[in-house]
Amino acid sequence: MKINENTGSLGVTFDQQGNAQILLWAPLALSVELTIQGHEAPLALVQVDREYWYLKTPTLKPGDRYWFRLDGAPLLPDPASRSQPDGVHGPSQALRLDDFPWTDMKWTNKPLSEYIIYEVHVGAFSSQGNFDGLLERLDYLKALGITAIELMPVAQFPGRRNWGYDGVFPFAVQNSYGGAQRLQALVNACHCKGLAVILDVVYNHLGPEGNYLPQYAPYFTDKYRTPWGKAVNYDDAYCDGVRRYFLENARMWFEHFHFDALRLDAVHAIVDFSPNHIMRELLQQTDALMEATGRCHYLIAELDLNDPRYTDTLADGGYGLDTQWVDEFHHALRVASGQEKMGYYSDFNGLEHLAKAYRDAYVYDGAYSEHRKKNFGRKVSTAKGERFVVFSQNHDQVGNRMLGERTSKLLSPGMQRVLAGAVLLAPFIPLLFMGEEYAEPNPFQYFIDHGDVELVKAVREGRAREFKDFYGERPPDPFAVETFMNSKLEWELLSRPKHKKMLAYYQQLIRLRKHHEALRHLDGPSCSVELHAPVLVVI
Amino acid sequence: MKINENTGSLGVTFDQQGNAQILLWAPLALSVELTIQGHEAPLALVQVDREYWYLKTPTLKPGDRYWFRLDGAPLLPDPASRSQPDGVHGPSQALRLDDFPWTDMKWTNKPLSEYIIYEVHVGAFSSQGNFDGLLERLDYLKALGITAIELMPVAQFPGRRNWGYDGVFPFAVQNSYGGAQRLQALVNACHCKGLAVILDVVYNHLGPEGNYLPQYAPYFTDKYRTPWGKAVNYDDAYCDGVRRYFLENARMWFEHFHFDALRLDAVHAIVDFSPNHIMRELLQQTDALMEATGRCHYLIAELDLNDPRYTDTLADGGYGLDTQWVDEFHHALRVASGQEKMGYYSDFNGLEHLAKAYRDAYVYDGAYSEHRKKNFGRKVSTAKGERFVVFSQNHDQVGNRMLGERTSKLLSPGMQRVLAGAVLLAPFIPLLFMGEEYAEPNPFQYFIDHGDVELVKAVREGRAREFKDFYGERPPDPFAVETFMNSKLEWELLSRPKHKKMLAYYQQLIRLRKHHEALRHLDGPSCSVELHAPVLVVI
Repeated sequence: MKINENTGSLGVTFDQQGNAQILLWAPLALSVELTIQGHEAPLALVQVDREYWYLKTPTLKPGDRYWFRLDGAPLLPDPASRSQPDGVHGPSQALRLDDFPWTDMKWTNKPLSEYIIYEVHVGAFSSQGNFDGLLERLDYLKALGITAIELMPVAQFPGRRNWGYDGVFPFAVQNSYGGAQRLQALVNACHCKGLAVILDVVYNHLGPEGNYLPQYAPYFTDKYRTPWGKAVNYDDAYCDGVRRYFLENARMWFEHFHFDALRLDAVHAIVDFSPNHIMRELLQQTDALMEATGRCHYLIAELDLNDPRYTDTLADGGYGLDTQWVDEFHHALRVASGQEKMGYYSDFNGLEHLAKAYRDAYVYDGAYSEHRKKNFGRKVSTAKGERFVVFSQNHDQVGNRMLGERTSKLLSPGMQRVLAGAVLLAPFIPLLFMGEEYAEPNPFQYFIDHGDVELVKAVREGRAREFKDFYGERPPDPFAVETFMNSKLEWELLSRPKHKKMLAYYQQLIRLRKHHEALRHLDGPSCSVELHAPVLVVI
Repeated sequence: MKINENTGSLGVTFDQQGNAQILLWAPLALSVELTIQGHEAPLALVQVDREYWYLKTPTLKPGDRYWFRLDGAPLLPDPASRSQPDGVHGPSQALRLDDFPWTDMKWTNKPLSEYIIYEVHVGAFSSQGNFDGLLERLDYLKALGITAIELMPVAQFPGRRNWGYDGVFPFAVQNSYGGAQRLQALVNACHCKGLAVILDVVYNHLGPEGNYLPQYAPYFTDKYRTPWGKAVNYDDAYCDGVRRYFLENARMWFEHFHFDALRLDAVHAIVDFSPNHIMRELLQQTDALMEATGRCHYLIAELDLNDPRYTDTLADGGYGLDTQWVDEFHHALRVASGQEKMGYYSDFNGLEHLAKAYRDAYVYDGAYSEHRKKNFGRKVSTAKGERFVVFSQNHDQVGNRMLGERTSKLLSPGMQRVLAGAVLLAPFIPLLFMGEEYAEPNPFQYFIDHGDVELVKAVREGRAREFKDFYGERPPDPFAVETFMNSKLEWELLSRPKHKKMLAYYQQLIRLRKHHEALRHLDGPSCSVELHAPVLVVI
């Protein structure tokens, strides 16, 4: 049998007649069985095409828990599981994603130039720590004036608290956040209120606990080394299955969750030397999907390469991604605000570099970087401001500090306002990190909830080692529940004048950005910048 | 002091006044000394720019042997040594490369479309086994009709016999071949006879013995894994020095040896994710040099990626290399000639794939490769036949066989003639492997001459292991002198009718290619190909 539309997508899907269609990539397996919880006899999958296994059956129903067994080995959860109700080590759960009662028919994605992004960690955003906790505050966000909510990764991770970058089931929505249906409900509600929604997805590695993928196929290769060990296999033998896996994943978020954009985590750690880079193929797939559905989707890269190739058009030999984060704007801004110059900040001199960031987006576009010990970057090839996303803080820049302090703890209210202005009036796409709009004093610290005690120990020690040289003290315990609880937003503060005042200021700035003619057009790198130290004039 | 034109090139060069200028990249050293053989007191180099060390001195004279000492560690040869008279572990020797009495002023490089390449291993070509042995036969090659000689690598390697891919001093010409001056004399003589000369250079790894580079600087990175271990560091911290090292090397071959083209070994093993790929930068440097000197140089890639990016123009986002080897043409041709289908041959079906190679250059341009276990390649984006180099055999395809048999041992004289026709009348650039034109019966086997006994043992065992599964017998001992001697051309055979006849046939074919209007224009991928099995018609 050949793979075609009839075999459905990876994982479990359901056809019109209610039959489950199961498709699994296991190119080296000699036999594959499906075990449904509550059913004694396992069902055999048949091999299709060269590398896939397939079964169509009325026995597996939505809500059922199931496992796969390869060549008689122990039972494993589904790599493309849509739900892990009992966590990463439990069985997968069959879900019907296509019967959610969407009511967002009137929603149309906004032009990228109108995006004002608000980054959210679902767990730390509310006391409930789930999608519904966010859903309840959409009116607040609407009143703030932001136009797009960006969710930090929601793919199933170990335990109940994690930044999300340790996800191991890219197709399953975190159970402790409320799972797939509540996420669909959240996106639907956002759209009905006129808010776009971006999802942060991680295609450069999987987390260290609960990653069953290597037991199925060569998802990883030691051709390249990444900060997380073996690289995801995008160009070595058997890479086609890996590419399909992540491409289908992206399509799922667009098709079945109606996300308006994907934020692609650390694309510089995606090493792919095939003639069609996976980012380019993702763009091609997304273009085709847009053509087919008439809906608009964006691809946003987190990129630490200062390489315009990623956002250059396909015609220019680029990968065609719509926009990218510019950390250098942040670094220059923070140094300009008078902060210390440690680590990666050491490359930045403050106002002068900030002026360069306003002018050219990249600060390093060919110059020697002392921190990186090499010439870094290339000049951007576009004058479109919407090709770059800027911020004065984000989950990383806050959370990577030992104590996770926001600018509210580090800078005077006056300087906080300067930073907000620098970002919100910039000729780029601005991004806020949840809570900054009312000067939330709580930190955003690094927290995990692994079941593997050795791993917890290793993370604790790694974190302590990382900061020892800098501070000589121990960082908060990443495993402690308090570390997570301390990182939550404290919405009650909004009743206090100090916080109310900051919120009003952010609202004003956003209104100004939206309505002032000069600010609505994102000239980006072509804007005129004059530096009359200590004053920076951006026209 | 800043690096500028006054500090000269890497290694030792001499100014007009006869002063030696010594420039060394040693970014982590705290002190660097030069020790000249016969002079007691070492001379101190001073740090220039950030990562370099420099000295201008009248003491070091051409012909002197010298060493460097970093931070009081043992003496080391120069990474950019122009001569290693006592081999890879001995001192370096200062040479003046710019006083060779060139007489090739009337030479102009040919259009690439007129190249008919003849690949030579200097050691195995003649009984002398050096440049002079080749120089003596230029009239023969001229009479054969080929237009360009390609030398397998001549950079200093361990011992006296090696294919050349174990070179460890990229700037030094192999002492046992005659060194730099005899190579200059050879190129000069070729040019005077109207022959172009191509040099095979290895920028993807250094050999396993005598590689002192890591003791100077981070020339290698473990970010990427290559078949030879750590990758050459083209994009990690300190990569600028590495890039300069190889770029200067390429320039040296053009400027001081007058090579017409470089054949870049296995560029697919050069992993570089910086915004300006090193191949692209090499092209830019070569373009600038051509502009400055008015001389024409080509860059030829050995490429196993079927990725047109390497030869696409800079304007199209490519690296702009002039042409590339197409192994797939060879594989399809050899299978079509009735040979076995082992290893990489297993992907090829003979005539049909040969027809595709004639038509599209790449056989796999997006299709699934069973041998590689993935979809492979992308369609070529040019119709220029000169973008591709084809052959029925070369050093690799012959020498990688356990017994190193040429087609003369494997195929009937009739089939040998068919293969010659397939290559020499192809709408691509043809390449012959030395001796095939007169059906040299001797093999071209794998030979080495390492001083490190453990390494010799490892190579022997590796070679035996590699072929065990295929043949169940032991390959010739790579370390044995006889293995090398057996691989030499036997020119006396030319007195025998059988060989004379084949030579005359090749001469005829080459004459036909050069003078027949239809064959002179390399339509390449746009030629019309019809397959009427078992006949292939290429128009």
